[in-house]
Amino acid sequence: MSLRNSVFIATSLDGYIAREDGSIGWLDEASATVPEGEDFGYNAFFESVDVLITGRKTFDQVLTFAEWPYADKPVVVQTRRPLEVPERLAQVTPSAEEPRALVQRLEAQGARRAYVDGGVTIQRFLAAGLIDDLIITTIPILLGKGIPLFGPLEQDVHLAHVSTQSYKCGFVQTTWRVVYTT
Amino acid sequence: MSLRNSVFIATSLDGYIAREDGSIGWLDEASATVPEGEDFGYNAFFESVDVLITGRKTFDQVLTFAEWPYADKPVVVQTRRPLEVPERLAQVTPSAEEPRALVQRLEAQGARRAYVDGGVTIQRFLAAGLIDDLIITTIPILLGKGIPLFGPLEQDVHLAHVSTQSYKCGFVQTTWRVVYTT
Repeated sequence: MSLRNSVFIATSLDGYIAREDGSIGWLDEASATVPEGEDFGYNAFFESVDVLITGRKTFDQVLTFAEWPYADKPVVVQTRRPLEVPERLAQVTPSAEEPRALVQRLEAQGARRAYVDGGVTIQRFLAAGLIDDLIITTIPILLGKGIPLFGPLEQDVHLAHVSTQSYKCGFVQTTWRVVYTT
Repeated sequence: MSLRNSVFIATSLDGYIAREDGSIGWLDEASATVPEGEDFGYNAFFESVDVLITGRKTFDQVLTFAEWPYADKPVVVQTRRPLEVPERLAQVTPSAEEPRALVQRLEAQGARRAYVDGGVTIQRFLAAGLIDDLIITTIPILLGKGIPLFGPLEQDVHLAHVSTQSYKCGFVQTTWRVVYTT
């Protein structure tokens, strides 16, 4: 039984997932024209995952949201610093494991699909050859700078196109499958 | 009569138009699976432009190609250094003009649509608010580093989605219109 690691994320056309300070107000603004009820497949995706693997910065950001967005879904926060988790969030656990070790542990625990989130964490998982698919929603804006989705790699990563859908609001969502050749 | 400035370019999924040394072997390799005769709309696009505006690096790269790819189409090379143009290429002229001045001159000469090419040149034109549309073909590969299509901007650039087409070879082409709000 292997764990399928998936990315579901929005980026600007120039590849940023947030401004330099982590803010995503530009994304909220762009979403103002999205018809009510349109979630770009997010809820179905979220239902399909057994666990979230998220970076520390993303977790800290999510903690500032008015509502905890992940219900009771288990969340593993990749961090080397002490993590103080609010008591109501018993499903959140810190982990300083390397990506491969973490994946093996979650597999052993029976997880089938993980939602990997956060720029640094996604980049570490990609570099470790551990991302299976990416669902990327491109927002029609250029930010010029910010926190990039992708980062340096030791070698090229080849992908296969799965599907693409464009939305009236101008968002374009493409699903890519990673094809590791080594 | 105003000049419509268009970009027609391929990038890796992580936004690079070439490796750090300018090479595009990865693009040639990816194109190996493209059916003969499929040009992703390039020829129709090329026919629609009156003039090319290209960067110095791209021009120097193109000069190394076995064949000159732009036929008799006028080509303006943006450069501040002396440019030695092969005698057979009388249609190539250097220009150290700022983007806006260049556009105004080409407009005055009756040009209706320009093909703006080269990373630095595209970035300068975008920053100057002079790009009208971008036709970007995304190649299913992550390079990790290279020469990026996009660069820093003084302010956000908003786009409108025009159309998206995916190809069996895995390429995804999206046309964006730039919406300058200021």
